[in-house]
Amino acid sequence: MTKIFFERVSILGVGLIGASFSLAMKSRGLCGHVEGFGRNRENLLRAKERGIVDSVTTDPGAVGKNSDLVLLATPVGSFSYLAREFASSLKEGAVLTDAGSVKGDLVYELEKLIPPKARYIGAHPIAGSDRSGLDAADAGLFQNARCVITPTENSDPDALETVTALWRALGSEIVKMDPGHHDRIYASVSHLPHLIAYAIVNTVADTDISYLDFCGQGFRDTTRIAASSHELWRDICIMNRHNLLDVISTFQKNLDSFSQYLRASDSDSLEREFKKARTLREGLGQN
Amino acid sequence: MTKIFFERVSILGVGLIGASFSLAMKSRGLCGHVEGFGRNRENLLRAKERGIVDSVTTDPGAVGKNSDLVLLATPVGSFSYLAREFASSLKEGAVLTDAGSVKGDLVYELEKLIPPKARYIGAHPIAGSDRSGLDAADAGLFQNARCVITPTENSDPDALETVTALWRALGSEIVKMDPGHHDRIYASVSHLPHLIAYAIVNTVADTDISYLDFCGQGFRDTTRIAASSHELWRDICIMNRHNLLDVISTFQKNLDSFSQYLRASDSDSLEREFKKARTLREGLGQN
Repeated sequence: MTKIFFERVSILGVGLIGASFSLAMKSRGLCGHVEGFGRNRENLLRAKERGIVDSVTTDPGAVGKNSDLVLLATPVGSFSYLAREFASSLKEGAVLTDAGSVKGDLVYELEKLIPPKARYIGAHPIAGSDRSGLDAADAGLFQNARCVITPTENSDPDALETVTALWRALGSEIVKMDPGHHDRIYASVSHLPHLIAYAIVNTVADTDISYLDFCGQGFRDTTRIAASSHELWRDICIMNRHNLLDVISTFQKNLDSFSQYLRASDSDSLEREFKKARTLREGLGQN
Repeated sequence: MTKIFFERVSILGVGLIGASFSLAMKSRGLCGHVEGFGRNRENLLRAKERGIVDSVTTDPGAVGKNSDLVLLATPVGSFSYLAREFASSLKEGAVLTDAGSVKGDLVYELEKLIPPKARYIGAHPIAGSDRSGLDAADAGLFQNARCVITPTENSDPDALETVTALWRALGSEIVKMDPGHHDRIYASVSHLPHLIAYAIVNTVADTDISYLDFCGQGFRDTTRIAASSHELWRDICIMNRHNLLDVISTFQKNLDSFSQYLRASDSDSLEREFKKARTLREGLGQN
């Protein structure tokens, strides 16, 4: 394993992911000074008070100066804007990575926004879900979690090695794939379920809000991720909308078939589809 | 609290609910002999071996004879057929109840099928979810769970009191409501989420089955109930199809709006809808 250490780290977005990243780095002795950037000064000062970051700034044009490693951990919709702001501050040889749930075109856009003296490698740690914010920060968040790294034909091999070693040092299992492939996969297994969880809650509210008093464990499980940050998921869904619309259309076809079976009281077809899903879901294990 | 004891109990369907009911009754000293009925003799013998039931039968025309309490805990689609079969076996004053997730017309149908000498009161313990079968049986399953009891204008007051006392003695919190109201509520908060969980799993399988390897905690939570018994949920969905189709239509409207916002890159509307759902879901607490 490549031994890594970053004298100075800048983290943009000190929420669940950003704060957990800092705690994970510090607890493993992988960094010196950590600078925290965000819009909310109160949140930043709370992070500093708790020793999660060592200095703070709300100025996107000043963040990242002299840093060896910069992590984008704000909602993905702000990545391009922020990269434009801090690009010129980046020092020679700085490595930029991110924790965004969308890759695809965004990776190529960030590559272009970063000056040649710095290097960007996209990453997506598969961690967190319905919890958000500083208070949920956890130094072990990335331990045993998967981290998808999305190099392109433009990626600097040394920077790729550094970013791979970094996430591995935080305990993550690394999977490398093309940015476009990442977005097709996560549209299906993550972005669709989030969108649907939000839609189910609103459906009950539209039907009769008092019905929510009768929800059981099934409803709670199915809609748990509807408690996820609406800003984060707004950005993810908008940015991956082409893949998401494709998978929504496949979902609609499945739901339309179910509706047709219900209207026709076609027990056999309904049972066949339920059984197919059950077998696949059981294959994923109980958790 | 009314003190209750049933000399002889018959349980139709010795799966998660039926077996847990028997264990709960026995462990609280609420019954003498328990007869188990099912289609699968092997399952029944295993239940007898483990002391969950004391005698077994696979004959629907013979079950319930001389029993003071009869519980229907098979998939709801079989209730009417079974009631027709055992109706004439019921003894004077026998109380029939059930654990079905569908009430509505079924309650009135069962009232008609039972001879005047016996009394039927519908019940729906809100327990279990993705687990099923004898092996998951638990004497504490109904403890602190809600149990909806659905009396009608035809219900015998003594039988209603007995059934209420019974579920209360098993530790459940009793809610009484009209059978039709029950079905409208549970179409929203239970039957829709189950149908959708099955549809999400099949959607990923239709898109690319290998994507399932990338599912995280959010997908696992959202689809946990897709591991539920396909036979049970086939029956529930078919029997409550009118209410379920109504709520699917409301869900479709929500999903269509989301799709429209995605196509238009309308972040504000998407965020507003996500925020509404998030606030409601957070109101239900973390579990």
